[in-house]
Amino acid sequence: MDVVEQLAAALPGQVQTDPGLLEACRTDRSGHVADGSPLALVQARSIEDVQTVCRITHQHDVPVVTRGAGTGLAGGGIAGAGEIVLSTAFMNRILEVSTANQLAVVEPGILNGDLNRELAKQGMWWPPDPASKDISTVGGNIAMNAGGLLCAKYGVTREAVLALKVVLADGRLISVGHRTVKGVTGYDLCALMIGSEGTLGVIVEATLKLRPVVAGTVATIAAFFDSVDQGAAAAARITAAGLQPAMMELLDARTLECVSRYTGVDLISRGNSYFLIQCDGPAAEADAAAMAAIIGQEGGRAEITTDPEEAALLVDVRRQGFPSLEAMGTLLVEDVAVPRDAMTAVFAKVAELEAKYQVMIPTTCHAGDGNLHPSFVFSGDTVPDAVWAAADELFSYALTLGGTLSGEHGIGVLKRRWLGDELGTEQLELQRQIKAVFDPRNLLNPGKVFAPVPMLAAPSASGHS
Amino acid sequence: MDVVEQLAAALPGQVQTDPGLLEACRTDRSGHVADGSPLALVQARSIEDVQTVCRITHQHDVPVVTRGAGTGLAGGGIAGAGEIVLSTAFMNRILEVSTANQLAVVEPGILNGDLNRELAKQGMWWPPDPASKDISTVGGNIAMNAGGLLCAKYGVTREAVLALKVVLADGRLISVGHRTVKGVTGYDLCALMIGSEGTLGVIVEATLKLRPVVAGTVATIAAFFDSVDQGAAAAARITAAGLQPAMMELLDARTLECVSRYTGVDLISRGNSYFLIQCDGPAAEADAAAMAAIIGQEGGRAEITTDPEEAALLVDVRRQGFPSLEAMGTLLVEDVAVPRDAMTAVFAKVAELEAKYQVMIPTTCHAGDGNLHPSFVFSGDTVPDAVWAAADELFSYALTLGGTLSGEHGIGVLKRRWLGDELGTEQLELQRQIKAVFDPRNLLNPGKVFAPVPMLAAPSASGHS
Repeated sequence: MDVVEQLAAALPGQVQTDPGLLEACRTDRSGHVADGSPLALVQARSIEDVQTVCRITHQHDVPVVTRGAGTGLAGGGIAGAGEIVLSTAFMNRILEVSTANQLAVVEPGILNGDLNRELAKQGMWWPPDPASKDISTVGGNIAMNAGGLLCAKYGVTREAVLALKVVLADGRLISVGHRTVKGVTGYDLCALMIGSEGTLGVIVEATLKLRPVVAGTVATIAAFFDSVDQGAAAAARITAAGLQPAMMELLDARTLECVSRYTGVDLISRGNSYFLIQCDGPAAEADAAAMAAIIGQEGGRAEITTDPEEAALLVDVRRQGFPSLEAMGTLLVEDVAVPRDAMTAVFAKVAELEAKYQVMIPTTCHAGDGNLHPSFVFSGDTVPDAVWAAADELFSYALTLGGTLSGEHGIGVLKRRWLGDELGTEQLELQRQIKAVFDPRNLLNPGKVFAPVPMLAAPSASGHS
Repeated sequence: MDVVEQLAAALPGQVQTDPGLLEACRTDRSGHVADGSPLALVQARSIEDVQTVCRITHQHDVPVVTRGAGTGLAGGGIAGAGEIVLSTAFMNRILEVSTANQLAVVEPGILNGDLNRELAKQGMWWPPDPASKDISTVGGNIAMNAGGLLCAKYGVTREAVLALKVVLADGRLISVGHRTVKGVTGYDLCALMIGSEGTLGVIVEATLKLRPVVAGTVATIAAFFDSVDQGAAAAARITAAGLQPAMMELLDARTLECVSRYTGVDLISRGNSYFLIQCDGPAAEADAAAMAAIIGQEGGRAEITTDPEEAALLVDVRRQGFPSLEAMGTLLVEDVAVPRDAMTAVFAKVAELEAKYQVMIPTTCHAGDGNLHPSFVFSGDTVPDAVWAAADELFSYALTLGGTLSGEHGIGVLKRRWLGDELGTEQLELQRQIKAVFDPRNLLNPGKVFAPVPMLAAPSASGHS
């Protein structure tokens, strides 16, 4: 039997070879498409199913691409010729919620939004808040160490995961991390697994660290500035003043143009940048007033509301950013993060690159943590050379500022060419060796994160565009 | 030239062989003493010095034990025959403080307390708060992933470190982590390094994540209960109610006896357990009132103060716990952590073990995060078999509760015999292979964390008691 026949025999009814289903697995929200079509899609329903898949693929030396909802923005979950897609989307149960221990145990396929709706009934909350939360899985959030809008105050995914169960490339199951708040027994393999993009193991169960729902009034500030530099300066001053918004988002003029066009709401005539802040907790209203004062000093026009419906509309402007840009053309979404006092420099660089390369680069920014998303807009399926050149220049510039080429989207296939520039040769080699410890045959998501080494790579690993 | 001569030639005036200095390096605050005396103590003053030491020891195949202030509680920094002690205690400068980016860059030898006194002048704060903070180094805190009194609200050391510079066993220098709040480029080697107890590399510089000093009134609750079970129940109810103290500590009757005897302040006549809470932030006083109400419902007698001097006295009772126990005899300090609703079960087990093994086990507890320190008291230098047996039973019990054998003190030599019980064979083997990636010749702190494998261990690595 070949690998697909053996999988079908072991997991009857769970192995799909429908061309439409397979086609969908060739891409994600980055828009990148893998070369060729995967061999089959296996829909796992239990830990044992995942172990079975890994044992069989290991036996046949066939690569496995683990996939949740396919909402990644770096091509980390796309599958091509010769590969098996292992979907954990149907493993979507909540196994336990403990308010006493402020934790939940879940399967990886549950959507972040669905989980949080259930937790809210018990007064609890899982903080990771990627913009995709209603369509992305908890397992995917963990595999990418997802960030989002609330990170400056409430941390990234790594700070919200206590323990994981992981199936290794050969089908063995390990448990890493702790069910406890503290734990220092050996190396932190739980942290190592978070953000490893499916290259070290398959996450099959997660123990999540919850928070009680934040009580009290939420104060929302919507502000407009004449320039995005003023907004970035206001954000930096708010942070430097020791004020801690739950959310602090900045949209530039290009993005406002796109959102105005897409939603029909005229925002661009109100200013050249939109600055959105939410404050929660017992001092929310006092904090918001202090922030509004800083905004005024920086030349902004701020309004504060505590009305939930009005606030929802103001936040929706931000959430419409990505769909508005998608409507403009094909996107290469970047994800640089810089120290917070360097945000202004990145906006200036973006303007310079727009002029130099004649490409439109609308930019949104998680201004509380210095994470910017310059989105290069072009037409057609192939990234033009000028866009790659502009992206390259921006990445390099972010590194000179003490920044990183990815704050929250990960490396996938999209950014692997730059990984060595950031990590350095020695660390890149250590990372490759760690990969080899967990997956000596390079069967788990090969060609992702690390660019294939031509002499060693499996044929299927070098085919992604 | 032998290794010591070559080190002395390369770093004149920095290589010490005074027997008194070497003797001190054979032990730490765990009281465990390494077999034999190390070859020399090298006092590094720069990253280049550390690289020089590692290049020379690597060339001679001689083990290196990195040491900060020697305040460890698990024997992780003790050095014995055939080993070089690499002290980073003199690398104690603050290189940068940025309020705009809420970070500090420091050398590893600075004391936690000294750093925080400097940061306070700029309104900033580094949260890790081990009880040893006035005498322990930041580098040591990172190497052990130190916890402390404030972790439930403010996190452990891993959540407070952005980036590290690390010298590898052969002297190469790598930079891991990010200067930014977010960053997902490859595997999180910064998190892997935190808590690795000097076995993967030498931490030579750290970029720390700071917080603004928390403004406003601090409300302190001191409560007494007739039984420690009532205190543990009150703590669990406070957590389950979604209230978040900055500090929540519980001392049992045995500890109160020892503190009363040591300080001369009669506490034990006031109750059989002491419960200390501090609330900070804008809702501190309202939160404290809500917690005091819960304490009353659980049978406790609570007093609240917002007077800083009175609060300092109440906290000092807790901080006197360890010295009070040290005055009673030799200690084997345990460090189990359990899910928060299992604290009562651990206290019951401690009482059972006291009776069964006729050993005194005063127990303090970080009740906000479920981390307990049962301290086995005995006389003489050698841990009696009955104490090991009782400790073994307690560890095993903690594991059955979903707990861990070390919440914050680490493995060192003291707990390595139990590491495999918690991690399982497969994960333990993965951890050993990761160690081999970073340190293929097993020269960095050999015999710590992982029990020596007799056939492979260097002679010096198997001699620790």
